[in-house]
Amino acid sequence: MNPGEEKILLSHGNGGRMMHRLIENLFLKYFENTILNEQTDAAILPTDSPGIAFTTDSFVVDPLFFPGGNIGKLAVCGTVNDLAVSGADPRYISVSFIIEEGFLMKELELIVKSLSEEARKAQVIIVTGDTKVVNQGKCDKLFINTAGIGSVRKENRLVSKAQNIQPGDLILINGTIGDHGMAVMSARESFNFKTRVVSDCASLNHLIREVLDQSSTIKFMRDPTRGGVATVLNELAGKTGLGIEIEESALPVNRGVTAMCELLGFDPLYIANEGKVLIVTNPMEGNHILEIMKKNKLGKQSAIIGRITSDHPGKVVLKTETGGRRIIDSLTGDPLPRIC
Amino acid sequence: MNPGEEKILLSHGNGGRMMHRLIENLFLKYFENTILNEQTDAAILPTDSPGIAFTTDSFVVDPLFFPGGNIGKLAVCGTVNDLAVSGADPRYISVSFIIEEGFLMKELELIVKSLSEEARKAQVIIVTGDTKVVNQGKCDKLFINTAGIGSVRKENRLVSKAQNIQPGDLILINGTIGDHGMAVMSARESFNFKTRVVSDCASLNHLIREVLDQSSTIKFMRDPTRGGVATVLNELAGKTGLGIEIEESALPVNRGVTAMCELLGFDPLYIANEGKVLIVTNPMEGNHILEIMKKNKLGKQSAIIGRITSDHPGKVVLKTETGGRRIIDSLTGDPLPRIC
Repeated sequence: MNPGEEKILLSHGNGGRMMHRLIENLFLKYFENTILNEQTDAAILPTDSPGIAFTTDSFVVDPLFFPGGNIGKLAVCGTVNDLAVSGADPRYISVSFIIEEGFLMKELELIVKSLSEEARKAQVIIVTGDTKVVNQGKCDKLFINTAGIGSVRKENRLVSKAQNIQPGDLILINGTIGDHGMAVMSARESFNFKTRVVSDCASLNHLIREVLDQSSTIKFMRDPTRGGVATVLNELAGKTGLGIEIEESALPVNRGVTAMCELLGFDPLYIANEGKVLIVTNPMEGNHILEIMKKNKLGKQSAIIGRITSDHPGKVVLKTETGGRRIIDSLTGDPLPRIC
Repeated sequence: MNPGEEKILLSHGNGGRMMHRLIENLFLKYFENTILNEQTDAAILPTDSPGIAFTTDSFVVDPLFFPGGNIGKLAVCGTVNDLAVSGADPRYISVSFIIEEGFLMKELELIVKSLSEEARKAQVIIVTGDTKVVNQGKCDKLFINTAGIGSVRKENRLVSKAQNIQPGDLILINGTIGDHGMAVMSARESFNFKTRVVSDCASLNHLIREVLDQSSTIKFMRDPTRGGVATVLNELAGKTGLGIEIEESALPVNRGVTAMCELLGFDPLYIANEGKVLIVTNPMEGNHILEIMKKNKLGKQSAIIGRITSDHPGKVVLKTETGGRRIIDSLTGDPLPRIC
């Protein structure tokens, strides 16, 4: 193939290897600066103390409505969570709509309403916005972009940087995995599932604040959205040069998600979540943090799912329930496009 | 028509009356808060001094490349200018792409490159971003959202609020009108123009900073993008309850734009600009500010184009070159969709 004819593929937008390459080879090539180079979910902006965090996300989920939420709620949670895992308190968001001509006003109202409700819940203020309308057939109903600003407390500035991680450190998650991706799948017309899978879509800033306020040992936090838990852990293994070991028996997975994944040939470790956070802390603090998380209604099913290890550096290994060991690679291709 | 069946029309995204209604009746209904209620181009966020400004815009221009620029350059200029007219110094921007599967990598690279070049020119830093890819046919090649943060100096906080405007105040613009809209039109395949119309797409923050640094009498600034000069002036007349009088003979318009407008039945006053700013100041300062503007290369053709009046309150009137008077109403419908 002529290199000039290289095309954008679905997998360029999936959060995995191809998107990483696109960012490295194209965006960073032109945009590179010390702040962007950090490649954290939200940019930490040097200002007078306290610093501010700034992030953005576009949402193209299909369908717009799914069990447990819609694109509006999702657009708030996604940006709020990106700020929260950076150690910031989300404060302000922008909302920008690209709408297909002919889109039903009442559907837009439902979406705007749930956007506003979720913003209230998360205690963020929508302070600016934009609307574009394109001709029929030129976009798929509705896309939403949100950008967000959060205030950063000095002591929390490092949680997105994965510094000081050591073998023995524990990996926690605040509940079941794969719910969002499977809920969106189940809402697609082509799949006629009668499942009860509901998206986990939720703003995690309050839970995360509770954890940060009661522990100073958090070494890393990230929300496993596109690409799932497997992708975040692979990035972490790559960044630290250490190995990661996950216990299959410790992974919380809802029965409906397990059933759908088996039927469709998916692995829940790769499925998007929209209300989950992965936390790395030192071994002494694991149970203390688990308790804090379990007290929050978004953390009832929290679990310690694995640990950092000096074995197999750079690799994520799953210890299966039957005693086997399987390498969990980074995502390639995009099994589930337009999940967020 | 059943009110539940009301549909989004192209004119809901045109910057004119229908969009205003959508914002008033839907977005403000749910989002309302003291900051958003200001409805300025960028949100002024209360923080420790100095405050920060925060804005967002999505870009869906068709075609992606046009004489004088492309969607990437436009995405920087649009957000930089929204911050600058709010009296802020643009500092940080986010960039979010929604890309159609199959989009040519080399075209994306051209766009990313010019985005980066314009950011450098404007001295803003791209600090965060996002990429989504959708299936072929689900968006029209490429959409870009940018959000921006600027630092606000205390003394410039009021320029977007149109306070203290009085009859006799002068209205200035930094050059010719209608260039961007007509340049994009000329690039559309269906129009086979051999014109030399070039978009005015430019970052105005340096010009605006020069003006603000050398004069404390600026009462209002706004960039006349979608809906053109006519729409901004109508908003201003409505907001102040005063009349506005524009001199047709004083309006700078390029010959190519005049020719295209005559041929197509457009009025340059309604055509989008992407490198223009309207400034209101007191009558004593008009010439001083004009001189400052003319010294900047983006202000060579600056002109005093009209004044605030106590006649015809709330209305914008054009004094034609032949001595007639014509009411310039707000834009309804969208004669030129997807111009930015």
